Amino acid sequence: MTAVEDSFSAADEAAMRQALKLAEQAIGLSDPNPRVGCVILAPDGRLLGAGHTQAAGQAHAEIMALRDAQTRGEDVRGATAYVTLEPCAHHGRTPPCCDALIAAGLGRVVAALGDPNPQVSGQGMARLQAAGIRTSLGLLAVPARELNIGFFSRMLRGRPFVRMKIAASLDGRTALPDGRSQWITAEPARRDGHAWRRRAGALLTGIGTVREDDPRLDVRWVPTQRQPLRVIVDSRLETPPGARILQPPGQVLIYAAQDAAERARALRATGAEIVLLPDPSGKVDLAALMHDLGGRGINELHVEAGHKLNGSLLRAGLVDEFLIYLAPKLLGQGREMAAFGPLDSLDEAPQLLWREIAPVGEDLRLIARPRGWAL
Amino acid sequence: MTAVEDSFSAADEAAMRQALKLAEQAIGLSDPNPRVGCVILAPDGRLLGAGHTQAAGQAHAEIMALRDAQTRGEDVRGATAYVTLEPCAHHGRTPPCCDALIAAGLGRVVAALGDPNPQVSGQGMARLQAAGIRTSLGLLAVPARELNIGFFSRMLRGRPFVRMKIAASLDGRTALPDGRSQWITAEPARRDGHAWRRRAGALLTGIGTVREDDPRLDVRWVPTQRQPLRVIVDSRLETPPGARILQPPGQVLIYAAQDAAERARALRATGAEIVLLPDPSGKVDLAALMHDLGGRGINELHVEAGHKLNGSLLRAGLVDEFLIYLAPKLLGQGREMAAFGPLDSLDEAPQLLWREIAPVGEDLRLIARPRGWAL
Repeated sequence: MTAVEDSFSAADEAAMRQALKLAEQAIGLSDPNPRVGCVILAPDGRLLGAGHTQAAGQAHAEIMALRDAQTRGEDVRGATAYVTLEPCAHHGRTPPCCDALIAAGLGRVVAALGDPNPQVSGQGMARLQAAGIRTSLGLLAVPARELNIGFFSRMLRGRPFVRMKIAASLDGRTALPDGRSQWITAEPARRDGHAWRRRAGALLTGIGTVREDDPRLDVRWVPTQRQPLRVIVDSRLETPPGARILQPPGQVLIYAAQDAAERARALRATGAEIVLLPDPSGKVDLAALMHDLGGRGINELHVEAGHKLNGSLLRAGLVDEFLIYLAPKLLGQGREMAAFGPLDSLDEAPQLLWREIAPVGEDLRLIARPRGWAL
Repeated sequence: MTAVEDSFSAADEAAMRQALKLAEQAIGLSDPNPRVGCVILAPDGRLLGAGHTQAAGQAHAEIMALRDAQTRGEDVRGATAYVTLEPCAHHGRTPPCCDALIAAGLGRVVAALGDPNPQVSGQGMARLQAAGIRTSLGLLAVPARELNIGFFSRMLRGRPFVRMKIAASLDGRTALPDGRSQWITAEPARRDGHAWRRRAGALLTGIGTVREDDPRLDVRWVPTQRQPLRVIVDSRLETPPGARILQPPGQVLIYAAQDAAERARALRATGAEIVLLPDPSGKVDLAALMHDLGGRGINELHVEAGHKLNGSLLRAGLVDEFLIYLAPKLLGQGREMAAFGPLDSLDEAPQLLWREIAPVGEDLRLIARPRGWAL
């Protein structure tokens, strides 16, 4: 067994923080692979090599760090590798990182946390130990897990981590009664929203938003090396073939409940993929949609939809996090954040816990998760 | 002219901060008089005396500080008095504080800011100067003004500073569709709300809230030396004579638009005062109400009303500050914060500026004022 140490040295912690910083650089790059960073230190604490996961099919963090050390002409024998996730022990699109660490003669491997896949968890650490490498686990596990919360969700639940983004006025309005919503928040909040889009494997909206706002739903206000998959919930295939969301860049996936052959043809002609997932009531089965997206390697799903789809996702218990931008203004009459209720009593209100409150420009960003939420 | 100094010493600032702390102790005590603190320091910086304004008709801060010095057996001749508001120069219910400071032989008087009444502003400082006392003005003027923002409002605009308190869910709901709202926020937020009630000269609600919630609308979760006046906007005098708001402690004032003689008699029998202030549409004239309350010495008016009255006050441009408690929960369908609109465009939305964001227990307290608001 790899020891879960009660305490690590300050040097250990500093090295792991550095590895986490590197791991963040894999956001917008490594999906569907997890974001992993690796730092290799000599016994005297000198940096020998560092790296992070590349695009899928390319090198993992450990390999990048070993290559970095080689480029620098450093000898890593007896050194310590700090890695933000247990090194892989299986042959995927790349050879196991464990073997590379063993072959390089590392003396110690510290991992922030174990592989989330219950069937392989621990095998990487075990193989390192069997090769005589000292191992320990659990250093800065919480931020390491948060960075890959979507990967953990897909591994443990078979579905993405679902983050619902809502821009609203202080009185909870997301649009005027006729649907106009551009813009409620100011530029800094909208730019921040694109940074969150960039984290996601897919961006999801509904046919109502496609019709009313005709969004591109891409990442353009912040640099990224890949565009998330764009997903439309469109029961009756009513997305206009000229909708901006169907235009490049990126792939589009439409979940429908009815096979409207002619409209489907026109949409497929734009390059969109259509998946039929009807539920008994003739709507798209949202839980099945999530599992389908999980099967497609989507770790984090970013929802930017209207009150109806928001309400449906909420009622289905499919929302893991709320990302709310509150603008310091009042709209009076208008669209609500999520259509559900009326509740029979106040006790039935879905309870949340604030995770973060921060000003973003003149607006306020509130992040909350359902109370009792756990993964 | 009293100099507005560009810089004060660190000792000056520390003394004025102490005076401001004392002034805060006059909250819930000195209304309708301003909250003033006074600290007297010897030339070597030793504290000689300190005090704050007492209840109306009793001693002001300067007198309390002089008495304190006397009690301690201290000689204040040549000393410096730090006072959070220009000493009064007129005979009100008490003799002018200026004269007392002059008689006591003070050498220097530092005031945080001048008297807000344009007709008397500067006279206190001028009289001190004429008596050979060094004076200066403007040290920590901003917090000194905020502490008495209601007094400034009444002096400068003839009406109270209006603070609208709203407790809502994250999605902006203040009650279920049938009006049930007890409780959306948790105990710490409700207790905090009572501390804000305590600041106010009067608490205002509408007939809708009286009927649905039957609130006592008093200060009971925090200690206070006086109960604010309770005010009901009740156009047709529909307040039930058994309503809890009519019961002790404290005085009740009902603004109506129609003279319903029989109902008025029943309400007067409970001790309530009734004032008729109809506007042309047969509702209570809210702007006139504010001036009437100003005439009654109300500095801060604390509003806890429903969406209709909130909307009316907002449309009338009578809200100076929003005090919002956001509970981390979602209610879906329900009552809104303030009924107004629909707006013709998003540009017409009343714009606010955040003043303070703070967690209170599990809830979030947001304080905002209209953008461009000034007094």
